[in-house]
Amino acid sequence: MANIEEFRSYFGAGNHDAAPAVNAALAAAKVSGERRLVFPRARYDFWPDRASERYWFISNNDEGLKRVAFSLEEYENFEIDGQGSEFVFHGYVLPFTLQGCRNITLKNFSVDWARTFHSEAIVLAAREGSIDLEIPDQFPYKIEHDRLVFTGEGDVTYGIENMLEFDTEKRETAFGVFDNFGVCEWHKAEEIGPRQVRLHAKFSTLPTLGNTMVITDGKRLCPAITIDRSQHVTVQNVTLYHSGGMGLIAQHSADLNVSNVRVTARPGSGRMISLTADATHFVNCAGEITLEDCVFENQMDDATNVHGIYGRISAVLSPTEIEFELVHPQQRGMDIFAAGDPIEFVRHTTLETYHENTVSCVEGLNKQFTRLTLKSPLHPDAAVKDAVANLRWIPNFTARGNRSRGNRARGFLVTTGGRALIENNYFHIAGAAILIEGDANYWFESGAVKDVTIRGNSFDRCNYGVWGRATIEINGAIEPQYRGASMYHRNIRIENNIFMDFHGALLSAHCVDGLTFRGNTVHRSNDYPRRNKETQQIAVDFCLNTLMDDIANNSDSLGTRETAG
Amino acid sequence: MANIEEFRSYFGAGNHDAAPAVNAALAAAKVSGERRLVFPRARYDFWPDRASERYWFISNNDEGLKRVAFSLEEYENFEIDGQGSEFVFHGYVLPFTLQGCRNITLKNFSVDWARTFHSEAIVLAAREGSIDLEIPDQFPYKIEHDRLVFTGEGDVTYGIENMLEFDTEKRETAFGVFDNFGVCEWHKAEEIGPRQVRLHAKFSTLPTLGNTMVITDGKRLCPAITIDRSQHVTVQNVTLYHSGGMGLIAQHSADLNVSNVRVTARPGSGRMISLTADATHFVNCAGEITLEDCVFENQMDDATNVHGIYGRISAVLSPTEIEFELVHPQQRGMDIFAAGDPIEFVRHTTLETYHENTVSCVEGLNKQFTRLTLKSPLHPDAAVKDAVANLRWIPNFTARGNRSRGNRARGFLVTTGGRALIENNYFHIAGAAILIEGDANYWFESGAVKDVTIRGNSFDRCNYGVWGRATIEINGAIEPQYRGASMYHRNIRIENNIFMDFHGALLSAHCVDGLTFRGNTVHRSNDYPRRNKETQQIAVDFCLNTLMDDIANNSDSLGTRETAG
Repeated sequence: MANIEEFRSYFGAGNHDAAPAVNAALAAAKVSGERRLVFPRARYDFWPDRASERYWFISNNDEGLKRVAFSLEEYENFEIDGQGSEFVFHGYVLPFTLQGCRNITLKNFSVDWARTFHSEAIVLAAREGSIDLEIPDQFPYKIEHDRLVFTGEGDVTYGIENMLEFDTEKRETAFGVFDNFGVCEWHKAEEIGPRQVRLHAKFSTLPTLGNTMVITDGKRLCPAITIDRSQHVTVQNVTLYHSGGMGLIAQHSADLNVSNVRVTARPGSGRMISLTADATHFVNCAGEITLEDCVFENQMDDATNVHGIYGRISAVLSPTEIEFELVHPQQRGMDIFAAGDPIEFVRHTTLETYHENTVSCVEGLNKQFTRLTLKSPLHPDAAVKDAVANLRWIPNFTARGNRSRGNRARGFLVTTGGRALIENNYFHIAGAAILIEGDANYWFESGAVKDVTIRGNSFDRCNYGVWGRATIEINGAIEPQYRGASMYHRNIRIENNIFMDFHGALLSAHCVDGLTFRGNTVHRSNDYPRRNKETQQIAVDFCLNTLMDDIANNSDSLGTRETAG
Repeated sequence: MANIEEFRSYFGAGNHDAAPAVNAALAAAKVSGERRLVFPRARYDFWPDRASERYWFISNNDEGLKRVAFSLEEYENFEIDGQGSEFVFHGYVLPFTLQGCRNITLKNFSVDWARTFHSEAIVLAAREGSIDLEIPDQFPYKIEHDRLVFTGEGDVTYGIENMLEFDTEKRETAFGVFDNFGVCEWHKAEEIGPRQVRLHAKFSTLPTLGNTMVITDGKRLCPAITIDRSQHVTVQNVTLYHSGGMGLIAQHSADLNVSNVRVTARPGSGRMISLTADATHFVNCAGEITLEDCVFENQMDDATNVHGIYGRISAVLSPTEIEFELVHPQQRGMDIFAAGDPIEFVRHTTLETYHENTVSCVEGLNKQFTRLTLKSPLHPDAAVKDAVANLRWIPNFTARGNRSRGNRARGFLVTTGGRALIENNYFHIAGAAILIEGDANYWFESGAVKDVTIRGNSFDRCNYGVWGRATIEINGAIEPQYRGASMYHRNIRIENNIFMDFHGALLSAHCVDGLTFRGNTVHRSNDYPRRNKETQQIAVDFCLNTLMDDIANNSDSLGTRETAG
């Protein structure tokens, strides 16, 4: 066992930068075959200056040349135990990256930043055309060229892309508000008092006095934990108070256990927001992915998203050769195929798989375009714009005992062809609590589900925000005219859940073969305005083999008990 | 011999993109050991889409993940012959990169862009607080959020960092004007007529009606020819009409012959500017660097610059270990030392070398910081802020028969410890025609010269701009209080040149041991206003062993003949 204290001489003298000590400790551990690195319980600070460096493509975050504090490349059988320590980061540095690792455990620490990547401000006044904000000391800023610019350590500044209103009391996105992309970046700002700024801009909704405007950068440059091409990774008893990107992002990795991970705004920090993107996200993973007993709250995007990547065919070069493009900028640089991988061809209109084959040769032109040679001749209808996906990287997914609330957007996005079990979780989510999607035209997130069980969960007043049409949404991106021809998803069972509901839209689904909704209990809440009395509780179109409790837009027929709001 | 026509099937179908064909041809040549790739004389277009990709650190340009049309990695004995072809590039793509190559010839082609990285506009009116501009069709733009934004193919936009006034008739920077950094980026723009824009901004000098404002991006992302860690490279009979960065940049390379290379605005294009940075630039090179019979005109920075890199000591770790930093952002990522390299330690105040040693081990932390272990104990005075430089990468430099004119900034910057010969060149330069500098506090460009001959050149009315204090300037960056203690440069001979002069400042020098100025002829011109009657023709301070024609601030004593202006 190695102790970081043995590397005390590597700490930066002036600023106590722990990054060089961690580098030295990790290098020594690799040489000696050490299996653990422990930290005496304390606060450790990390700056980018002397951190290691690598160009990272991180799916659904932003690529770039990154500084990394804990950079694990090709480690096996290794554990990092913070023993309750606080790891505090400064500026543009990634806390943890794993690349080509096996049997790794990260546990018992918290991650925070000395200055967050996002900023917050309290609404003092709002009128058509301008709002007045008070900006707490912890979010330093300047007015430069009539623009509001947030500042950090040294000469670091933070971009402004979105402003979103949060209900300060409820600690969640304000009821029914939309994002305000670009509002702050392009409009005139003026100082009107000490730490008070008037912003001349048109907001999608006039914010409520006292509410909190959360201001975020467009970039996701510093996710907290990045796992790439690794296997058997456990992240346990870790608290992520903040990151400039996702909390945990895994790609092309297998057998990942995430338990007792808490994404939350630091208590006593006075902050509304925890981290600036999804709490967790799994792209082209395999094996067993497990989320257990976690808390995902107040982050600026979904609680989790499990999906693959569709490449878009850009050319059919010969009967056995195609070129495809990774279209979504944050998916570029992912090598989604290797020789020997099974590949499916998916019609971009219906999302139906019309051909399967095996990759025999991969030639990457650049992060965007790749050429593939296939073992057998292509289907004669294989066409430009259709999608290809890898059938090897499809995980099973279990989410059990997690608590998700207060974040922007959705809860769990589950788009995996493996077995998915979502059990005994609590959701209080602004958008859909569970979304099963898949699309080959915009996000390019694959693929069709085959076996999903959603049971024993508590859906507590979801959809108080704008991100979704029902508490559970099964929404493969198939244009209406193609829905009759497609059974994209299969075998989804929604059973024995409790819905505390104020809007009446429990389930929206289309293009599913095998959809069960039964044994669920619905309570009525009056905590939020009902949006639309015409809402269908169960809106199911173009589905086959459905098995439902007697629905008929009548809450009683679902065994609903009326409860006080 | 391979012919690009053999790879016709690889050309992009819709847009005739030659990049995939070049990739295929280069790959095939490597496999077959082919020694030449020829292009039937024609126009070939290159887009970034399917070009190869690599993260490039390019000294004095901007690093990044680059698309490259002709990417040569580890090629030997290979020639690319354009046979007079035009290579036309679109967007962010680098024409040529060489990495780890030997015996390479590039010849007989021109390089241009379909849409230049810079833009130009004619001054229609100018008043305190605003100017009106007419923007030719070839520089598309839009007004967005009250800002002027230049646009290109697809959704490409170009940043605006600097505006500089050029004399439309003389085709050179307007007399005595300064750069206008940030003016355009931050000030209000409005459309006042078809392709006419009013820019509300304060300019350093009110521009003259009819003159050309040249608007450039702050980034140098796409130099035309990049040569890294390569030997014996010839670039011959090549015309560079444009690039988004330098024309030719070589680093850690040896024995480079550049002959008949013409940097010039494309005739008939209606453009004032050729390329957007230095015409040529050589960093930490070795062997023989030769520039012969070239034309360098109307580019936005110096004609050439030959120098090394100083690292700044950031920590003395032990009697045999230091850490140093690459301070200038455009030098970061250069691995300036390898094990076995001779190293000098330079006092940052006096620039004097006070210690030499040998590197035994190099540990790069990231692009910015590196740790070195040295063979022998350090000098006891080795201190933080002092500089280190590599004594292995020092080239001889010959510039003969070149013609430099009309560009922004300076002519030849020669800061090499090798033998330098600048002979029979023509200069009509806005700043200093020849600058011998070196500094360890801002640009970090090493090092001391030891043997420079400047003879038979024609200096035609230089210093009509603001970039320099004399036609030949020897200006090691040593603060005045340290100059008495330092003889940084040595053995500089300026002989038998012709000066056509209007301002009276022929030579400014300090801290030189061995400075000869003799046999030079001075003609007087009245083409430009004289700037200062008090100017010394020869201003020499803190020099030893000077040998001058009888100078005494009297042009006659230099054998000056008065000529009509």
